[in-house]
Amino acid sequence: MSLITLGVRDVGRARTFYEQLGWQGQEVQETVFLQAGGSVLVLWGRDKLAADCGLPDHDAGGFGGFALAHNVRSRAEVDEIIAQAVGAGATVTKPAAETFYGGYAAVFTDPDGHPWEVAHNPGFTLGDDGTLTVPDFGPS
Amino acid sequence: MSLITLGVRDVGRARTFYEQLGWQGQEVQETVFLQAGGSVLVLWGRDKLAADCGLPDHDAGGFGGFALAHNVRSRAEVDEIIAQAVGAGATVTKPAAETFYGGYAAVFTDPDGHPWEVAHNPGFTLGDDGTLTVPDFGPS
Repeated sequence: MSLITLGVRDVGRARTFYEQLGWQGQEVQETVFLQAGGSVLVLWGRDKLAADCGLPDHDAGGFGGFALAHNVRSRAEVDEIIAQAVGAGATVTKPAAETFYGGYAAVFTDPDGHPWEVAHNPGFTLGDDGTLTVPDFGPS
Repeated sequence: MSLITLGVRDVGRARTFYEQLGWQGQEVQETVFLQAGGSVLVLWGRDKLAADCGLPDHDAGGFGGFALAHNVRSRAEVDEIIAQAVGAGATVTKPAAETFYGGYAAVFTDPDGHPWEVAHNPGFTLGDDGTLTVPDFGPS
């Protein structure tokens, strides 16, 4: 998985939002690329992306079938990022709380309603560059 | 961005599909984790994921507002992966063709309708571990 593209209503608005969260975007032909660790977040017009995928768009709002996650190193960092996102115009859809797996997480949606979970999961290893490695959960 | 979670109707079916594409899954509490380079793809019940995000799910099929991408090193590799995905039950929604940016790409949907673009983009650098680095596009 190299890249995720989010369909957005207003590329400029979406770029401003993600840059307020500390990412740096580059715009090429009405498409914004943001480096996110070893992968890339792309912002592109929702109608163009749907057409490019060959899919009809029956957008009714609400859940789109996916969620992105940003794993961080501490509970305090979860609270900080949520505060920063709210300052940038995000909507908190799930306030920060302990999770069933012994972590701490909250969910916000970006200006286009795309959900991001911000989580501290003590069972997951985060590399210096932010890459995430799944632990070996043992035989299942 | 550490993780993307796809909401699926049948976790076992989705796991089988992605394992046929060569990934290795680990299941923990009805959740499947697949390492995808430096990030992680997670498969989880669509209803649970929507509830966990605090979002209503008006799923009408079609486009969900996002697309994942797998960037590869050659055009031949695009064709190979598309053939492998079709063998695993994917639907090709955009047949392989040249792109406006001088690359070559196709789109398939997984058993839950989530779109994946498989692309060869000669302008993007792929690390040995599959991580993607956005080029410096210069002043915009």
